[in-house]
Amino acid sequence: MEPGKTHTHAPGSERDTTRAEAFSDGVFAIAITLLILQINVPPGSDLASALLNLWPSYFAYVLSFVTVGIYWARHHFVFKLYERTNHVLNLLNLHFLLWISFLPFPTAVLATNIRDPGNQKPAAVFYAVALLLPAASWTLMWLYASRGRRLVDRHLHASFLRWATMQYVGSVALYLTAAVLSLIDFRVGLMMCVGLTLLYLLPPRDPVYARGGASSR
Amino acid sequence: MEPGKTHTHAPGSERDTTRAEAFSDGVFAIAITLLILQINVPPGSDLASALLNLWPSYFAYVLSFVTVGIYWARHHFVFKLYERTNHVLNLLNLHFLLWISFLPFPTAVLATNIRDPGNQKPAAVFYAVALLLPAASWTLMWLYASRGRRLVDRHLHASFLRWATMQYVGSVALYLTAAVLSLIDFRVGLMMCVGLTLLYLLPPRDPVYARGGASSR
Amino acid sequence: MEPGKTHTHAPGSERDTTRAEAFSDGVFAIAITLLILQINVPPGSDLASALLNLWPSYFAYVLSFVTVGIYWARHHFVFKLYERTNHVLNLLNLHFLLWISFLPFPTAVLATNIRDPGNQKPAAVFYAVALLLPAASWTLMWLYASRGRRLVDRHLHASFLRWATMQYVGSVALYLTAAVLSLIDFRVGLMMCVGLTLLYLLPPRDPVYARGGASSR
Amino acid sequence: MEPGKTHTHAPGSERDTTRAEAFSDGVFAIAITLLILQINVPPGSDLASALLNLWPSYFAYVLSFVTVGIYWARHHFVFKLYERTNHVLNLLNLHFLLWISFLPFPTAVLATNIRDPGNQKPAAVFYAVALLLPAASWTLMWLYASRGRRLVDRHLHASFLRWATMQYVGSVALYLTAAVLSLIDFRVGLMMCVGLTLLYLLPPRDPVYARGGASSR
Repeated sequence: MEPGKTHTHAPGSERDTTRAEAFSDGVFAIAITLLILQINVPPGSDLASALLNLWPSYFAYVLSFVTVGIYWARHHFVFKLYERTNHVLNLLNLHFLLWISFLPFPTAVLATNIRDPGNQKPAAVFYAVALLLPAASWTLMWLYASRGRRLVDRHLHASFLRWATMQYVGSVALYLTAAVLSLIDFRVGLMMCVGLTLLYLLPPRDPVYARGGASSR
Repeated sequence: MEPGKTHTHAPGSERDTTRAEAFSDGVFAIAITLLILQINVPPGSDLASALLNLWPSYFAYVLSFVTVGIYWARHHFVFKLYERTNHVLNLLNLHFLLWISFLPFPTAVLATNIRDPGNQKPAAVFYAVALLLPAASWTLMWLYASRGRRLVDRHLHASFLRWATMQYVGSVALYLTAAVLSLIDFRVGLMMCVGLTLLYLLPPRDPVYARGGASSR
Repeated sequence: MEPGKTHTHAPGSERDTTRAEAFSDGVFAIAITLLILQINVPPGSDLASALLNLWPSYFAYVLSFVTVGIYWARHHFVFKLYERTNHVLNLLNLHFLLWISFLPFPTAVLATNIRDPGNQKPAAVFYAVALLLPAASWTLMWLYASRGRRLVDRHLHASFLRWATMQYVGSVALYLTAAVLSLIDFRVGLMMCVGLTLLYLLPPRDPVYARGGASSR
Repeated sequence: MEPGKTHTHAPGSERDTTRAEAFSDGVFAIAITLLILQINVPPGSDLASALLNLWPSYFAYVLSFVTVGIYWARHHFVFKLYERTNHVLNLLNLHFLLWISFLPFPTAVLATNIRDPGNQKPAAVFYAVALLLPAASWTLMWLYASRGRRLVDRHLHASFLRWATMQYVGSVALYLTAAVLSLIDFRVGLMMCVGLTLLYLLPPRDPVYARGGASSR
């Protein structure tokens, strides 16, 4: 307590996850709402057909909306497992949000080109890659936080951590497969993207906790 | 407490409605503010007339703004009646928000085509359907949550639940009527949409609670 | 407490101002950030001059940004004086936000037309009216809440209420004057809009409270 | 307590930083998400090459996204050091946010012109200046708040304050250098902007506190 003695503590360095979650929520809400801006009013005299002809835009809008919505729910699920955050996790989260914010663009690319025989293949590949990138950055964030229980709740059971890791690594593999399949047949690749989104509509498994940290490895 | 004993509880699965409300608030605020982006600066040399000629855009902007604003107020009203949320309600809420986020597009379609004799009918039908869809998804959410008091406050009086159900199912019927009437005369359909919005400006009925859950059925 | 006895209270009807403030904050933040979308990348080969030639866009961007920013600060200031909210105040607040959200459009109209001799007058009038409308709806909200101390803190001194009323009614009169002056000389009207914004950069007067409600009338 | 006695206190004037932070978070989240709207779907028959040819847009998107993301993290870091806010700090913060919200425009200017030999120099200078302006307004805010410990935590050690001041003033000097270097060779200027962003990815130094305010000067 003598004057002049200095000490370092951390009121200025953020440790809990509240702020990171609030910022992420903002980005999710904005990215999901911006999707509609990619659909433009069709010109021309036959509005009824023109509106029906926009079905690729509606399809892409709904698919991307639901995908972002699921990531939002999953983000909440996982950030409740994190006991705290650190600088690296914040950067990995920012990296993940970069790809979430990117989605309106490939969504519009897909909607515009899905009926163009020359362009439907690259459009579908681009879209599948745009879904692969958030999945990959998501998994990277999870691996960083869960390895050796670095940031996750210490009482989480090893079996639950393994299940989550498998699920997220599996997502990456499946989206990669969808991107590759799109190169062969864009319909198959797209249907796989739709299927994955429908799959993720299922509720996540409840986390399992172990009493006694040592035994749960 | 013996090592290795596992138990499942739910700190990771979200039960209260705070997060769902915050995310919904974000989507409401963004969707309502994006509406203005659909009005473009008119080109040409006579700006004064051009600005006056944009009245359909102003009309559609105000109508959609008020409609979204009322849904925001109603969302708060109803989510206070919900004791908790679950995975299905979150998905139904996401589905509802999908149609709220969609509104800037039919608003622009209506504004662009309302004076075009060939297109005003499909534009009005499209707009009425775009108001029907949030009303229907809203009602679906309410029916799921209120059936057998699944998620609503157990003490709410049965008469209040019946009143709310009737009001929301009635909305769906009225917007459906507006869409059908637009097919006959687009003016009548639109005026019905305006009328419904004005009607919903009235304050909601205060919820009625019953002491003693059994007797309130 | 007998079974079947019903009573009406208000957990579902919102009384405090937290939610209305959070929603308003969202709209303010979005409207202020959307302003930049009205500035488009200039085409052509001489980018340097093109960027300098965009000065009307920069001017309008800064003016509208600061105006919305001041309303945000003022909104916080005033909503702290409100003890509670009700349905009418929520609607008046929504009406005010409608004009805040509208601002990106007149901002773009002003920026596009300020150098066009034929259009600069209607553009300036439109912009001044677009500043008059939030001022008027703001004042309406204040008059409703402060009349007879309907919703404001009962301990606020009458002199403070009078000062605020005079300030807000004065704003309306001044923006109306700016709109009328724009009809005569658009430069004078615009300079008045700038002057008013600069004036409102001054800190608001601290509220004055009276001990003893009766004596403060 | 005698009737009629008035007193002035400050429930209406905001002193803590919560609201300023929430509003800033909103602007950060929106500005960062709007960046994607500047990338448009490429027209034409060869979509694959067109998407690859958009690399300047991807580059500018990522660079601006990371820059805004870092400012967000830094904003949280610094606002935790502030004990309270006042009217001037709120205005300086608004001024800073004005330049954050501005970033989508220079980002689009850079992306559109980076391959145009006649325009790449002004585009890079404009972008570097657009990064200089938030850095300068940020530093202004810090200098105002930290001078004589006006608003920062009184227990912060003088050496920490000096380190922060040097870092922020240094940023301004470095972005100014980047802008000037862009005038000579746009590649060098841009690489410096990239380098600075990478540098700021490093975690900030933990604040150092002194027990005994006098001795810490």
